[in-house]
Formats: sequence, C-alpha cells, structure tokens
Amino acid sequence: MPGMKVSEVGEFGLIQRLSRMISDAGVGASHEGAKFPLVLGIGDDTAAWQAREVVELGTTDTVVEGVHFTRATTPWKDLGWKVMAANLSDIAAMGGLPTYALVTLGLPGDTKVADIDRLYEGMVWACREYRTVIAGGDVVRSPVCFVSVALNGYTEGPPLTRSAARDGDLLAVTGPLGGSRGGLEVMLGDGTDVTPGAREYLQRAHRHPEPRLEVGRILAGEGVVAAMDISDGLADDVGKFMASSGLAARLDLPQLPVHPLLVEAFGERAPRMALAGGEDYELVYAAPLPVMERTLARIPGGAVVGRVVAGLAGEVTVVDASGRPVPVHEAGWDHFRSWRSL
Amino acid sequence: MPGMKVSEVGEFGLIQRLSRMISDAGVGASHEGAKFPLVLGIGDDTAAWQAREVVELGTTDTVVEGVHFTRATTPWKDLGWKVMAANLSDIAAMGGLPTYALVTLGLPGDTKVADIDRLYEGMVWACREYRTVIAGGDVVRSPVCFVSVALNGYTEGPPLTRSAARDGDLLAVTGPLGGSRGGLEVMLGDGTDVTPGAREYLQRAHRHPEPRLEVGRILAGEGVVAAMDISDGLADDVGKFMASSGLAARLDLPQLPVHPLLVEAFGERAPRMALAGGEDYELVYAAPLPVMERTLARIPGGAVVGRVVAGLAGEVTVVDASGRPVPVHEAGWDHFRSWRSL
Repeated sequence: MPGMKVSEVGEFGLIQRLSRMISDAGVGASHEGAKFPLVLGIGDDTAAWQAREVVELGTTDTVVEGVHFTRATTPWKDLGWKVMAANLSDIAAMGGLPTYALVTLGLPGDTKVADIDRLYEGMVWACREYRTVIAGGDVVRSPVCFVSVALNGYTEGPPLTRSAARDGDLLAVTGPLGGSRGGLEVMLGDGTDVTPGAREYLQRAHRHPEPRLEVGRILAGEGVVAAMDISDGLADDVGKFMASSGLAARLDLPQLPVHPLLVEAFGERAPRMALAGGEDYELVYAAPLPVMERTLARIPGGAVVGRVVAGLAGEVTVVDASGRPVPVHEAGWDHFRSWRSL
Repeated sequence: MPGMKVSEVGEFGLIQRLSRMISDAGVGASHEGAKFPLVLGIGDDTAAWQAREVVELGTTDTVVEGVHFTRATTPWKDLGWKVMAANLSDIAAMGGLPTYALVTLGLPGDTKVADIDRLYEGMVWACREYRTVIAGGDVVRSPVCFVSVALNGYTEGPPLTRSAARDGDLLAVTGPLGGSRGGLEVMLGDGTDVTPGAREYLQRAHRHPEPRLEVGRILAGEGVVAAMDISDGLADDVGKFMASSGLAARLDLPQLPVHPLLVEAFGERAPRMALAGGEDYELVYAAPLPVMERTLARIPGGAVVGRVVAGLAGEVTVVDASGRPVPVHEAGWDHFRSWRSL
C-alpha cells in the first residue's frame, strides 16, 4: 500500500489508514486523567469530549505547498511536526495546554501514500510529545497540497493576551532567535561553508521547532499577563503585540539572544536574522521588572530584549549598541514576510 | 477597495476588513446569555471562551475550487453559506448547538476583494441564522482557492452517534432528498426545460441548504440516540452509518421523500436522485417504532425510508415497490461520490 497513490486508495481507505496510525500511536484517545476526556473520536459526524468550567482555546494554522513549504527544504515528517508545532505554539502563547486537534489534508490524487504516512508520523510525534489527541478531520482532493490543523486547548487561569502590555514593561523572549531562518538559508544554499555542527543545529531549528508549552505555563504561573508567540519574526510580531496593546516598543538589537552556532555560520548577520527570521516559535512577553526577574530565573536561554514605551500603537524602534535606530526594513523581515503571507 | 485584488490589500488588510464585517454583522461576539461566553475573539494567538460542564463537539469541513465547487454553479455568497452549513449540519447530526467557528481562506493573490466580501456575507448570514460566532481563523496565499471551517458546539445530553443503531430500528429522514443534486443538474444544463418554479426550488436546494439544527434537538429530546447527516447521498451515508453500528440496512426506494418539483423536473429519475444525490443536509436516524412515531409527529416532511437489519456491517440493500433489489451502483451515487472525494 505505501507504494500506491492516494487516488488508488481513495478517501475512505486513506482515512482508515490514518485512523489506525493515530490509534496505534496512542494519540487517538485521551490520556488517563485527561482534563477533557474524549467521548467520540474519529468516525462520527463530529468529535466530542467532556468539557469543564475553564477557559477554552481555539486556534488554526495552515500550510500550502509552494507558499509555506517546499519538499526540497521540508521533508514530509518535518512538515507534519511543524504544522502541529505552529498550532501548539499558539496555545503556549496563551499559557495553555492543548486538548484536541482536527487535521485537514488537501491532496492531489497522485500523492504517494508513503508520503502521507511520513506526514502523519510527524504530526503524531508532536502530539505524543505534547499530549494532544487527533480527534477528527477531513481529507479532500485538491490540485495543490495543503495541511490545516485546528486545535483546542484550555487555560486554568486567565489566558495571556496581546493586549495586556503596559507602558514601562520590559520585553523578553524565551530563547535564541534566528535559528529557523538560518536553517532555511543553509538549505537554500547560502552559507554552504558552515561547519557540520552549525548545519545540524540550524537545520533542526528550521525543521523541528519546539513549541514552548511548558514555558508558557511558567509565565502564567509567575504572573505574566501579556505574551504572544514569535512566528513571523520578532520585529513583525512585537509590532502586532504592541498594536493590540495600543503602545510602542524599543528593541535593543545587541540584546537579542542568538545561538553561538548561528553566529559561527552567519557572523554579523546573526542579530538581524534574530530580529527578522520567522518560525522560531519562542514566546515574547511583557512584564514589570520584578515579574521579569522571577520568570527569567526559571527560563534558561530567556533574555530581556527591550521595553514597552508610549508612542504610536504598534511602532517598533530597533536600536544598535550605541543607541542609534536601525532601519527595520533593512533587516530583511519584509522580504521574509512576503514569503509567508499574501 | 472592493475593486482591488487581495495581493494589493495584503494579509493584514484583508484580515482587518473581514474582522470588521464579522463585528458589524454581530457574529464576532457572543450573544447575550450565551452558554459559552467569548473571552477573546479575532486578533490574539487563539480565540478563547468560557467552557461549561457539557459535552463539547468539534468538526471541520473544507471545500476546494474545481473539486467541490465551481464559480459557474456556486456564487461566492452561496459558497460561504454552504461551507458554514456543511459544518453546522455535522453539529445538528449530534443533536447539538454551534458555538465558535474558525475560518481559513486559501486564496490566489489575484482574487478580488469584492468576491471575498461576498463569500464572507454568505458565512456571516449562516452564522446569524444559527447563532454561531466567528472567533478566529487564518488567511493564507494559495495557488488554488479553498475554504476550511472548524466549528465547535455542544450538547446538553449525550450526543447522537452513528454507532448506536439497533437491529430492528426503523430508519427515517427529516425531509425531502435529491433537491441539491437536481439543482446542480439544472445548472449544468440537464433539464433545461424545467419550469421556472422547479428551477428556483432546485437551485435554492443546491445553493442554500438549511442545516437541521432544530430537528437534531427534537430528535435528542424525543430519545433518539443514533443519527448522522446526509452529505454524500442517502445510500452512501446509510452505509457508513450501518458500518459504525455493525449492522446492515434495507431502504425502500418508493418511500424516499421527494419534493413534487423534483418529480416535475426529473420524473422517474427523482427517487434515484433522492437515493444518490449529496449535499441535502437532512438527517437520517434510527429508532424503534414508538420513538419514531413521536419524532415524525414533530417533523413535517420527515419519513420512514427503511429498516436496520442484521447482516454484513455497512451493507445497504435498496428495494423497489415490488420488493426487488435495485442495484445501488446504477443509481449513480458512485459517479457523484467521485466528484466529491479523492
């Protein structure tokens, strides 16, 4: 069957195959002691679960071949991991925990069943790692391949929001930035003279980003109320964060945490890649100094990168070591953004 | 702006525009007295709502241009209505009520903003009609247009399932079948000699199917436990229903409810269109006689169409007026199915 194409197996055959994979991997039924026990999984008109008196979360993220990924730089298994990780990262940004995913595949008829097996292996891997259940979905024929995940989750306290930053808060990120962008550039042929160690680190950062669910819970537990995840690049996302809060931000370029192997591979470009590169899936959050100190003590790799200031809502000023503004557009994020969005 | 293309407006501009439409239409915030009040709508990393101690439902449905719809037979506004109706129908089939929708649009850059306005008008219309809130979503660039909706809902009692039919139950449907298929054929040029009245009825059945949320609640209230919605055609869907229940079914072709205007337009073909045509979004349910009598007394247009029997799981036998088996494949549903699925 793996040598076959999805048009030969048919929708029904493919769904049966995927259901079996989900079930065999233990991500088709709720875990012992789950907060929201599963009532009905794959195979009915809807999935169903027992809800509780908590704040529930819902998010969705979609990737399209040729727009968000290419088979050249993203193997199927990594694609499965990444699309699930992108959704899990949104839940992490709320300080929440994931519960149930619905997975939609749009597939050309000549897609190999073996490729879809790999895609699902990646999704199942992420679901196991982060205790998420695949409770349903849809498989449709499509001239272009796309994968869409809708994910539910919950928080036990109030969710962390983009609108809760306050004037004077410090801004921090939860880990090194720019690695995913570095990995993409290495794979596209820039930086072909990087060492094997740097190549491995950077490719992994691009292909296997780790959603910061545990860190999101730490933030919520320590009293942080304002956060978001970094999917489109720090400068771009802090702009959205501040726009929601009606404030502006100042980012200190030299303070951006960058991994030594990114510096080894890209030298002086590393901080700008950290500023502009997307898909790192770290979190950025705003908090007053005492809260910031408590959180950073618990988040190795976290770092203060700037400050929330009064100003034009959504405006982000980036300054270099001498305090001089760095033109954000030259940092390259606009180019990257056009690759990701409309 | 309506004369512009989405590539000119950009992702951010389009999302702002759609958010405003959702908000202006009153489907961006929960209704007064809503069971699950909205905590966070569009604009944060996830949507958030206050959940209750009930069974929650999750479903998703996707349509792709050239596979599930063409602009020739489905105007944008109708497309919006239909994709929302398909999801609402899944909630209806559980005896549930809808809560929150996440909407994903995959759009070529040259899509007209005015067309997306129409698409959203259709979605918003369905959401108003059935008290559903659009709480978030995603807009992505794609070489082919697709629309994906993920919808949450809930039931106050146990959900109606596909696996709960019992040997000896009667099978009934909640209204006339075949209208959507008739409408499609009329628009594709078959039956060009139909009267204006029949054309209008059939086109409306195809373009504006009404999810049976109220009827689903009646079924649950009267003690029905086994139901599903008819999206791929009665014969096909009863096959899935019975497969889930581990039983077989016998359907009486002459008992299938067909609208007089379908008969007027297609004569003898009408019952077979009712058997095979998809996208009617009526419900099919199984229940013992006393429960069946109570439900049919409350559902005008509902009709018993057959019976659950012991046999090969999922096998559906269709018989004519004289009790002779009708070959299901000749009824045309396989052709139709190939149009809908892989």
